[in-house]
Amino acid sequence: MIIHEHFDINENGHLTLGGADTVSLAEKYGTPLYLLDENVIRRACRTYREAARKSFGEDALPLYASKALCFTEMYRIAAEEGMGIDCVSGGELYTAKRAGFPAERIYFHGNNKTQKDICDAMDMGVGTFVVDNPDELSAVSEEATSRGITQRILLRITPGIDPHTHRAVVTGNVDSKFGSAIVTGQAMEIVKAAISARGVDLAGLHCHIGSQIFDIEPFEDAAKIMVSFLSDIKKECGYDIRELNLGGGLGVKYTEYDREIDYASAISEIANIVSCACNEHGIELPRIILEPGRSLVAAAGATLYTVGSVKCIPHFRNYISVDGGMPDNPRYALYQSQYTALIANRASAPRDFCATLAGRCCESGDLLGENIKIQTPKRGDVLAVLVTGAYNYSMASNYNRIPRPPVVMIKDGEDRVVVKRETYEDLVRNDV
Amino acid sequence: MIIHEHFDINENGHLTLGGADTVSLAEKYGTPLYLLDENVIRRACRTYREAARKSFGEDALPLYASKALCFTEMYRIAAEEGMGIDCVSGGELYTAKRAGFPAERIYFHGNNKTQKDICDAMDMGVGTFVVDNPDELSAVSEEATSRGITQRILLRITPGIDPHTHRAVVTGNVDSKFGSAIVTGQAMEIVKAAISARGVDLAGLHCHIGSQIFDIEPFEDAAKIMVSFLSDIKKECGYDIRELNLGGGLGVKYTEYDREIDYASAISEIANIVSCACNEHGIELPRIILEPGRSLVAAAGATLYTVGSVKCIPHFRNYISVDGGMPDNPRYALYQSQYTALIANRASAPRDFCATLAGRCCESGDLLGENIKIQTPKRGDVLAVLVTGAYNYSMASNYNRIPRPPVVMIKDGEDRVVVKRETYEDLVRNDV
Repeated sequence: MIIHEHFDINENGHLTLGGADTVSLAEKYGTPLYLLDENVIRRACRTYREAARKSFGEDALPLYASKALCFTEMYRIAAEEGMGIDCVSGGELYTAKRAGFPAERIYFHGNNKTQKDICDAMDMGVGTFVVDNPDELSAVSEEATSRGITQRILLRITPGIDPHTHRAVVTGNVDSKFGSAIVTGQAMEIVKAAISARGVDLAGLHCHIGSQIFDIEPFEDAAKIMVSFLSDIKKECGYDIRELNLGGGLGVKYTEYDREIDYASAISEIANIVSCACNEHGIELPRIILEPGRSLVAAAGATLYTVGSVKCIPHFRNYISVDGGMPDNPRYALYQSQYTALIANRASAPRDFCATLAGRCCESGDLLGENIKIQTPKRGDVLAVLVTGAYNYSMASNYNRIPRPPVVMIKDGEDRVVVKRETYEDLVRNDV
Repeated sequence: MIIHEHFDINENGHLTLGGADTVSLAEKYGTPLYLLDENVIRRACRTYREAARKSFGEDALPLYASKALCFTEMYRIAAEEGMGIDCVSGGELYTAKRAGFPAERIYFHGNNKTQKDICDAMDMGVGTFVVDNPDELSAVSEEATSRGITQRILLRITPGIDPHTHRAVVTGNVDSKFGSAIVTGQAMEIVKAAISARGVDLAGLHCHIGSQIFDIEPFEDAAKIMVSFLSDIKKECGYDIRELNLGGGLGVKYTEYDREIDYASAISEIANIVSCACNEHGIELPRIILEPGRSLVAAAGATLYTVGSVKCIPHFRNYISVDGGMPDNPRYALYQSQYTALIANRASAPRDFCATLAGRCCESGDLLGENIKIQTPKRGDVLAVLVTGAYNYSMASNYNRIPRPPVVMIKDGEDRVVVKRETYEDLVRNDV
């Protein structure tokens, strides 16, 4: 096992993912190549669904935050696993529709839905809009009224947790492009506006405190603040908020230095806090919605590359250049995200080489990692970067006019293409 | 004039680009929308071409570093303007070929050319390979030998300017994923290997010291070091290096705080240094190649957005949310790049509002700028970000499943689409 139990090494010393030999897959499909273990994704969905039901009751619903990894087959899997989904754009809605995803289980997010997005979503019968701001509330209300429908909505609220408690994670939560803050009074204002707006049914509130969080306390703090706000709404407006969406953000283990989170226990801990808070405030437990994205798909993925050159610069450092980079994984360039990497065709060899992993783009910042401990590499080796299921394919670009890699799904050791490799013809398709 | 002379304000108080009313263009094509002024690009090409010939002689050639902005029509323009081009991938080569760009004027760059890239480039008859490292030299030599051809090559060299002189710009030049450093002896090693390798003709050397540089000294230092290295090669190997590619990197004015560079004088200054250095070392002036990218196309561009919401958070800050963001311009997320922005439909109004420009992605880091002084905005306004011609379209992604905007070229006040807007169907084209 390497980092997660579905990564292992077989008798040929090759890295395996979900039992499949990654070196054979690199030969079969070429590199760069995104791999995903379908069983890992399905298991993660079930963990969330079961823990949510057990902790919050039968009507609790986990939504897959699909911006983490978005293509048609992912929505089919989420539908089969009984998940709801969080979509953030017309493009995600279009893809979900193509997959036949039930529109009533879609939550439509985003800090800036365009008029076209709003119309498209209503045409599709999207179950719930998560309304971000007063401008958007007016737009949704007007469009729904003109259609003679009542659109179910949540409002996005920023709980504004005291940054002194959990500085790294939640600093600036009030200062956010998303939602309305409780402490400024703007949250209560938009709640009142939504209660009285035509064409909308204010079902609940949404909050999301951040991403890649390993401590439970910030979630508990957010839950307490949100329940207290539900109680304030009850007192001030006599209005029952029936649904509370607590967002996502639970962390994922990328390297040996990260902890592994037991998601079921984490959900159970958060549930206790929510129940206690509701009791304390004398309000009924609302329907609880959770929104995992990264924690459903990140660990399931790996990306395979071919080593092109190994450069040792005396007194400086070693560079391993691969045939992908920031176009398929911009997370190091954007956030200096840490990954685990290994030579897939000599996975049992000692990691006795320290190197910077460089992409193939003409840009110094195109790196996949620095100070990476890895097996001594040579041109032609298959290099694997692990835990790339989230925010890799979905953030990929064609920078340097490089086609995006295909996505291959592995299920019970069998592989199939779920997104085809882009061709050069795809790159010029819209060129006049 | 705003920042550059082709940005102006007409009698309706609308921002114009190359004489075209941007508000009318936003209505005609929708937003987000990339605009480019073709005359500005052509003028920049001519400035470089004429200055290079005047300073270095008739055979001097500026190459357009096409990773800055790559689509078919850009290669047609570069061809018509008598430029060479710098391509960095099979995708760029494919696009250049589609545009009918003369293969002999193509320089093929990159720190990691795949075997397929090498074969494709030789199939096309690409004039010059810029070979990065010994692994690649062997691969190019073998492929050329097996085809019975002699491939013209340059070698990429890192001049390794003393970081104490120009720390911000050139620190870590020896420590680079690109090329071979002179100070480590690795540059001389690869030169010797290239001289004796079969199937290749070592025509010259290439160096590139960085990007968005406003001082001439680092270029002069690099030129001196490279000429001295040419002299060393002559002494040690008796070999005449006939071509010296000095790369690109001259800065572009993005905001009122940036200087404007006179590219013709800068080239003339560099030319003086090169000539003096050649005289000093008693070697003939080699053919000089320059590689501007950003400075040919950045200023020509602007991106138009529609304002979705304006959020004022008391005691924190103001947010303006627009219908694009990091998918069409990731440069603030990646490098905190500074831009000039204005409300295109009230461009003469005072800039009395200070705001953070937020994109529409579900990601806090999706910003286009902070502390931007702009006209007081409202939902529905057209917001323009200026000087977006370089590294915007070419770095664009579909993050959040958002289609990439079209590129509209303006020439003498007339507009035409050169890259069509992506459709939702384009997004799912490769989904199985």
